[in-house]
Amino acid sequence: MTDLSRERAAALDAADPLASLRDAFVHDDRGLIYLDGNSLGRLPKAGAERIAQVVREEWGAGLVRSWSHWVDLPTRTGDLIGSALLGAAPGQVAVSDSTTVNLYKLAVAALDARPDRTVIVTDDDNFPTDRYVFEGLAAQRGLELRVVRSDIDEGLDLDALRDAVDETTALVSLSHVAYRSGALLDMATVNEIAHGAGALILWDLCHSAGAVPVELDATGADLAVGCTYKYLNGGPGAPAFLYVRGELRSGLRQPIWGWFGQRDQFEMGPSYDPVRGVERFLTGTPAVVAVAAVEEGVRLLAEAGIGRLRTKGVALTGYLIELAGAWLPAVTLATPVDPARRGSHVSLCHPEAWRLAQALIEENVIPDYRAPDRLRLGPAPITTRFTDVWDALDRLRRIVDDKTYERFPAEPSRVT
Amino acid sequence: MTDLSRERAAALDAADPLASLRDAFVHDDRGLIYLDGNSLGRLPKAGAERIAQVVREEWGAGLVRSWSHWVDLPTRTGDLIGSALLGAAPGQVAVSDSTTVNLYKLAVAALDARPDRTVIVTDDDNFPTDRYVFEGLAAQRGLELRVVRSDIDEGLDLDALRDAVDETTALVSLSHVAYRSGALLDMATVNEIAHGAGALILWDLCHSAGAVPVELDATGADLAVGCTYKYLNGGPGAPAFLYVRGELRSGLRQPIWGWFGQRDQFEMGPSYDPVRGVERFLTGTPAVVAVAAVEEGVRLLAEAGIGRLRTKGVALTGYLIELAGAWLPAVTLATPVDPARRGSHVSLCHPEAWRLAQALIEENVIPDYRAPDRLRLGPAPITTRFTDVWDALDRLRRIVDDKTYERFPAEPSRVT
Repeated sequence: MTDLSRERAAALDAADPLASLRDAFVHDDRGLIYLDGNSLGRLPKAGAERIAQVVREEWGAGLVRSWSHWVDLPTRTGDLIGSALLGAAPGQVAVSDSTTVNLYKLAVAALDARPDRTVIVTDDDNFPTDRYVFEGLAAQRGLELRVVRSDIDEGLDLDALRDAVDETTALVSLSHVAYRSGALLDMATVNEIAHGAGALILWDLCHSAGAVPVELDATGADLAVGCTYKYLNGGPGAPAFLYVRGELRSGLRQPIWGWFGQRDQFEMGPSYDPVRGVERFLTGTPAVVAVAAVEEGVRLLAEAGIGRLRTKGVALTGYLIELAGAWLPAVTLATPVDPARRGSHVSLCHPEAWRLAQALIEENVIPDYRAPDRLRLGPAPITTRFTDVWDALDRLRRIVDDKTYERFPAEPSRVT
Repeated sequence: MTDLSRERAAALDAADPLASLRDAFVHDDRGLIYLDGNSLGRLPKAGAERIAQVVREEWGAGLVRSWSHWVDLPTRTGDLIGSALLGAAPGQVAVSDSTTVNLYKLAVAALDARPDRTVIVTDDDNFPTDRYVFEGLAAQRGLELRVVRSDIDEGLDLDALRDAVDETTALVSLSHVAYRSGALLDMATVNEIAHGAGALILWDLCHSAGAVPVELDATGADLAVGCTYKYLNGGPGAPAFLYVRGELRSGLRQPIWGWFGQRDQFEMGPSYDPVRGVERFLTGTPAVVAVAAVEEGVRLLAEAGIGRLRTKGVALTGYLIELAGAWLPAVTLATPVDPARRGSHVSLCHPEAWRLAQALIEENVIPDYRAPDRLRLGPAPITTRFTDVWDALDRLRRIVDDKTYERFPAEPSRVT
C-alpha cells in the first residue's frame, strides 16, 4: 500500500520545482484551499500591480496618448500566449472579445469557407456556450448540428467521432479538455479526422490552455479559442484568445466587420478593408485594463514552462485520484484514470455532491459543483500544493464519514 | 463686443455648479488641458479605487465566490446608465461586449425581425465601425446599404433621410451625435421617420450618452448601443451598453447564443433557452473589472445630473466657438452653430490641422485630429473648466499667428 500520510504530501511539495511560484500570487484568504483554478484562476501579484499601473499611469495620466502602448496589446498578448502555451508561431493569436463571441466569429468564418456543406459536428459534453453558439448557427443557416455522445468518464470516443464526420461536414468543434470530466482529446488525431473529410476544426482550449501542452501548429489545427481567466490567471471575464492558422487567414473572413480589423484604422476610410494579419479577426475596441492583466498572468506561466506545469498537473490530479480511491469508497471517478487522457481537473461523482460542496466550503475548501452529481476539483498546477490536495481530501473524507453534509439543504439554489 | 478676457473665463468657472466634481477625477498630468474627453474620458478617483477593490478583495480574496456579486453587474450597471442618462426604465439596458459587437447583435436581431425588407439606411458621417458592420451585414445577407450624404458641418438633413427611408427599409441606424461634426439629431423625429415606413431604428449613442439628454423610452426608440469610455469615464475599451425597448424584447433574438443569455445559466442545460429579460442580449462572460469601473463613472454623471451636464456642455462649446470666431479667422467651424443641434464637441477645419494638433500637444493641450483637416475639441462637461477652453484657444491662436506649427512634419504618421 502506498503512503497516504500528510508527510508524503509535504515531501512532494518540498521537491516541487514550481513551489516558489506560488508566492507570485495573492493569498489573502486565511488558509483557503482553492480547487477551482479551472473556473477562475488566482490573482497574480504582478497582475494587480499591472492593473494599478495601467489605471493610474496609462489611463489617468497618459489618457488618450496611451493608445500608442495599447493598440498592439491584443496581438502582443496573443503572441505570448501562442509561444508559451499553444505551440503557435507569432501572428496567429490575438486577445479579443469573449470566448463565446470568438467562437461565433471563427465558426461563421469556417462555415462560410465550406458553403456547400451542411453539418456542424460537436459532442454533448462540450461546454454549454459552445453548444448554444453552434445551435444558433445551425438554426440561422439551416444546418444540421450533429452531437456525438460522450462517455461520462472517458470523454469522446474517437470511433464515434469518425462515424459522425463525413463529406457533408463543414466544421468539427470540440473542447480539447472536457469541462466536466477533464477528458483530454488527442488533437492530432481529431485534426486528421476532420481534415480527412475536408472539414475545418475549431478547438475550444478553455480547460487546456495553461494546463496541458497544446501544439496547434504542429498538429495542423485550423482554428481555436480559449479563455484567459482560468489557468491563465487573467481575471474574471478577461478577454479571450483566438487562433487562426496563418495559411488560412487570408481566405477566412469573420462576420463582425469592426474598426479594429480595418487597414489604417485611424484613417476611418469609407469601406471595410481588413488587414492581412490576425487583427482581421478583431472587432471593436479591446478592454485594455483586462487585456493587460492577461499579459501578466501568461508571463508567469511562461516562466513556469508548460512542460513543468503539465508534469505537476499530472502529479496533483494523480495524487487526488489516489487519495479519493483510498478514502472515498462512496465516490466514483468521472475522469479518465490514464493521465495521458486527462487535463488538470478531476470530477468525483456522488449523489450528494451539492451538499458535499457546501460542507467543503464551510471547511475553507473551494471546490466546484456541476449538476447533477459532480464535485469538480481543479488544482491549478502553478498555485496548488500537494498538501492542499491532501488537506482537501482529508476534510472531504471526514465530511462523508461523519455525514456532516446532511446539515446542508439538499436542493441547490443558484450555483455561482 | 463680448469680453474675451481670461477673467471672464475664471468668472464662469466660479459660477459653475459642477466645478467641484472636477476633484472627483485624477489630474496627475502637470496642468494638462484635456480636450479629448469624447475619445477617452478621464479617470474617476472612485473608478481607480473600485478597480483596486474588485481586484484585491473580490478577485484576489473572494475568488470564484465573488460571482454572486458579479452576475448582475451587466444589468445593474445598465439600469444605472438607463435611468441616469438614457431615459430608459429598468430592465432594458445591459453592459456587455464592445460597441461593435453590440451593434452587430442588435442589427441582426432587427434584420431578422423584418425578413421581407432589403435595405439598411445609415449616413456617410456615421462612425466607421458602424458603417463597416452594416456593410458586412449587407454583403452577407444580400441587402442594400443605403448611405445618405451628410453635410460636413450641419450633419444629416432630415428631408434627405425621409427620401431614403421607404417600405423596403428594414433598419435605420444613425449616430445621435456625429463623431466628427458633433451634429445632434432630433431623436423623436428620426424615430418617426423610421417607424412611419415600418422600419426599426438603432441608435449609436457613443458621442451623446453622458453629454446630452437622451430619451429612448419617451421618443419611442427601438434599439441603441453606446460606449462607456468617452463621457461615461469607464476606462479604455470598457464594455459597451445596449438598449432594447422592453416591448420588443421577446420578439427579437440576437445571433450569438451564449451562456450569459441562457435561462438557469449554471444548470448548463442541453439547449439554448434564452431568458425573457434584457440578459438575452448578453453573450459570454462579462469583463468584470472593466464593467465595475463603468459603474463608478456613471455614478458621477448621475450625481452631476444630465441636465446640468448638458447646460455646461452648451456653455463650454459655445464659449469655444465664440473664442475661435474672434481669434482664428483662418479656421472654419465644422459643427452646428445652433447649440440645440450639437453635442459636446466641436470640429474646427484648417488645412494644417495635423500640424496644429502636434503643436498643441507640445503646449500641453490634448486635442483630437480627424483626417484630413479637422481639429476636434471635446471639452467633457464634468471635468473641463472655462479657463481650460480659454487657455487652449489662446495657445492655438498663438500657434496659428506665429506659425510655430510649421516646425512639425506635414505628413501625419499613424494617429492614435
